[in-house]
Amino acid sequence: MHNNYNKLKQHFLKIDHFRHLSAITGWDQAAMMPSGGNDARSAAMAELSTHIHQLSTQPVIAELLDNVANESLSNEQQASVREMARTYKLSTVLPEALVKAKSLAGSKCEHAWRGQRPENDWNGFSKNLKSVVELTQEEAQIRSESLGVSPYDAMLDIYEPGTTSESLDSIFNNVKGWLPGLIQDVQDKQKSEVYKKPSETYSIEDQNALGKEVMDLLGFDLNHGRLDISSHPFCGGVPSDVRITTRYDEQDFVQSLMGIVHETGHARYEQGLPKHLAGLPVGEARSMGIHESQSLFFEMQLGRSDAFIHKLSPLAVKHFSHNDPAIFAADNLQKIYTRVQPGFIRVDADEVTYPAHVMLRYEIERDLINQKITYQDIPDLWDIGMKKYLNLSTKGNYKDGCMQDIHWTDGSMGYFPSYTLGAMYAAQQMATMKQTVDVDSAIESNDLSPIFNWLSENIWQKGSLLATDELVKQATGETLNPSHFKAHLFKRYLG
Amino acid sequence: MHNNYNKLKQHFLKIDHFRHLSAITGWDQAAMMPSGGNDARSAAMAELSTHIHQLSTQPVIAELLDNVANESLSNEQQASVREMARTYKLSTVLPEALVKAKSLAGSKCEHAWRGQRPENDWNGFSKNLKSVVELTQEEAQIRSESLGVSPYDAMLDIYEPGTTSESLDSIFNNVKGWLPGLIQDVQDKQKSEVYKKPSETYSIEDQNALGKEVMDLLGFDLNHGRLDISSHPFCGGVPSDVRITTRYDEQDFVQSLMGIVHETGHARYEQGLPKHLAGLPVGEARSMGIHESQSLFFEMQLGRSDAFIHKLSPLAVKHFSHNDPAIFAADNLQKIYTRVQPGFIRVDADEVTYPAHVMLRYEIERDLINQKITYQDIPDLWDIGMKKYLNLSTKGNYKDGCMQDIHWTDGSMGYFPSYTLGAMYAAQQMATMKQTVDVDSAIESNDLSPIFNWLSENIWQKGSLLATDELVKQATGETLNPSHFKAHLFKRYLG
Repeated sequence: MHNNYNKLKQHFLKIDHFRHLSAITGWDQAAMMPSGGNDARSAAMAELSTHIHQLSTQPVIAELLDNVANESLSNEQQASVREMARTYKLSTVLPEALVKAKSLAGSKCEHAWRGQRPENDWNGFSKNLKSVVELTQEEAQIRSESLGVSPYDAMLDIYEPGTTSESLDSIFNNVKGWLPGLIQDVQDKQKSEVYKKPSETYSIEDQNALGKEVMDLLGFDLNHGRLDISSHPFCGGVPSDVRITTRYDEQDFVQSLMGIVHETGHARYEQGLPKHLAGLPVGEARSMGIHESQSLFFEMQLGRSDAFIHKLSPLAVKHFSHNDPAIFAADNLQKIYTRVQPGFIRVDADEVTYPAHVMLRYEIERDLINQKITYQDIPDLWDIGMKKYLNLSTKGNYKDGCMQDIHWTDGSMGYFPSYTLGAMYAAQQMATMKQTVDVDSAIESNDLSPIFNWLSENIWQKGSLLATDELVKQATGETLNPSHFKAHLFKRYLG
Repeated sequence: MHNNYNKLKQHFLKIDHFRHLSAITGWDQAAMMPSGGNDARSAAMAELSTHIHQLSTQPVIAELLDNVANESLSNEQQASVREMARTYKLSTVLPEALVKAKSLAGSKCEHAWRGQRPENDWNGFSKNLKSVVELTQEEAQIRSESLGVSPYDAMLDIYEPGTTSESLDSIFNNVKGWLPGLIQDVQDKQKSEVYKKPSETYSIEDQNALGKEVMDLLGFDLNHGRLDISSHPFCGGVPSDVRITTRYDEQDFVQSLMGIVHETGHARYEQGLPKHLAGLPVGEARSMGIHESQSLFFEMQLGRSDAFIHKLSPLAVKHFSHNDPAIFAADNLQKIYTRVQPGFIRVDADEVTYPAHVMLRYEIERDLINQKITYQDIPDLWDIGMKKYLNLSTKGNYKDGCMQDIHWTDGSMGYFPSYTLGAMYAAQQMATMKQTVDVDSAIESNDLSPIFNWLSENIWQKGSLLATDELVKQATGETLNPSHFKAHLFKRYLG
């Protein structure tokens, strides 16, 4: 009677208990811990990591996975076993020595980077990056042999299982065909726009109260989560207790407010995962790209829509009662939140220029991992890419160029495409949703549940039961189709 | 070269890493977690508990402890081994089945008690208490055989190693000789006192800002700790990151403010423990009684002193700028903070009547564990004791009588004496300190460091290097002598 399956289930639930502790103490480290607590915390969390790794790589898992093939399992159990096997393979495919060496090199590179970036010190940085790249190439080679795909595709598989550089090339080639023109046209259109920018002090208390009300409007369940402050906003915690963070700038409410909308999207996905599969790999979010599709659905599809901006406007006037209300007029807010401006920094980029930042990074990391280029080629390729896509030069400007992101410092190559895949999935979800749900009316009526019900049924409740392609196909009737994203951008920015 | 000692050290440091995670996630559960996160958190923490228990009871520890006897160790290392052996014995002396049964019975009793207490439901409560008492008697019997002391003394040893009921009997017999008379005399003296009680709204923001300034005055290191809110104030976290909590009542600042002073005492002990022994049993606080001596030194010896009240007064006026300043006049504050009034509830008791609550509980739990009485005798004995010590009857009033505390619900018999031992140690420390430190001048000068230096040198830096008696003797020139406590009370309340 499913003896092996039940043993696997118990083992993965046990691992999940320790991952729970890691999620909460990790959140605490970022949002609560005073800096003097860092050494002891880091040591404790490293010990926990080691323990989780040990539990995740126990040979008994392989045995049980072999034996469970003889049990007659439901579809759900089969999907569960598939995800357990995937998790186990991800944990065991690399030799311990390589994992340790990469972790060490990554910590060293990241730590030094925090000081080197403000100094624009590419020379110093590149020495550490060299080791990280070499170890990541070694990692990719091993993963490549195990999966039977190219080294870079094997890295993609960590974050976005099933995605290939073949499909990404095709998608991005499409985008390259229309994005530079779109960016130019939008800038031309917006050139004559007049609007008020934030120029007063917006108290953190008011920002926080508005943020909480917006979270509530977006269905964030405060009985299963919190909002706090950290220097880098993120969504952490566990599905039953999701911890989102923001950072407040008293001179500018704009980023923080939409940041809360973004993290609320991540949070609702986590809060909406299937409860009966909680703690199992199959009960987790499908992928980084699908996770980002939910945050971007909230931030871009929903949060920047006319209807939502009209909903936001009176709330902002109410909470910022000491500030000039003109800035919160719907028309003004809408201009603020849809302004397009090519810039150096990815995390500050608007919805239209963002894919350019991702494509640039994708091309470099793909060729780096497939050993077509070396780490020394990065600054020149960055400059060429920025000129081509955004007409900006980063020659000699490393800190606002190839040294701006944390991702490569610890060898998370393969992650960047998730951002744009997420934006595309989100546009496709909205296009499909609008066939059956009157989204604008739902927003206007203050009852957004038809929107959330669609996401819950089609995305959240599916956990990792389906492969990404199948998930997208069941939800929208087709696999990823970037034309929805294109249509969305053209409509919003040139429509 | 200390091979066994080093292995022991590594093992105990490993255990400490997991205890760190337990401390932080436990704090989070009480101070941060939304209630919907409780089930998953409890499961994760139970898993962690099991893991810590497994690590703490590994037979390799016994082997290493045997072998380490052949190594030539420093005095400090010898003390370290002694405390490792004590910890190991505490963890291993009970059969697993008993530990589980008691934990289960305790959880059940405590959980039901939360509903039964408001209902005054002794009948329901006593059914669960019966199991807890029986299992604790069984536990005490096993500990008794292992230590060669009486069952109750074996329970005392968990919280206050070295203390015996013989010494407690002698101390409490002394107290019984003068306490009832003192309580009567103080009440007579205070009968005619006129003072203003808090009767306005004291904003939580103001209370929190005052609390933070008082913590700063008391040397709490905010780089190694935090102040937050929880429904039951406590001091948690780890020595490098001490988490204290309070609860605020907008109608009354009195309890919360002195509560912060109390928890700051606990916190400074933790923050002041020897850094080079961090993570080892010998580097931990000596005992519950010594811990309480630090919180009560801060709250009673320091916090309620004339000099400190005079320091507090202008700070309170400053922070409660919207409130009537008359209430914060030093003379008025002092009357508030030294009011004596016999009452039913221990946690609300003043400094003078508190020992009566402890003696009452001590006598009952001692006789219960030594099987001189049964759980059914508790209500009557409670009523008799309350009449004898405080002239109050609790007949039929279980909820304000024997059902008021959480301690017995999970079988923590042997804990109560720590409170009064702490008060006595604190008085003895202050009496000794005053021989070399001008405490009042230090407070007046805003530089309390001479006070903290004395505590650091004599208590905090000692960790568990010395047995309690030796610690007290080295610090004060004699072992526990309750006459200091008596002198303190007579001077403050009748002086």
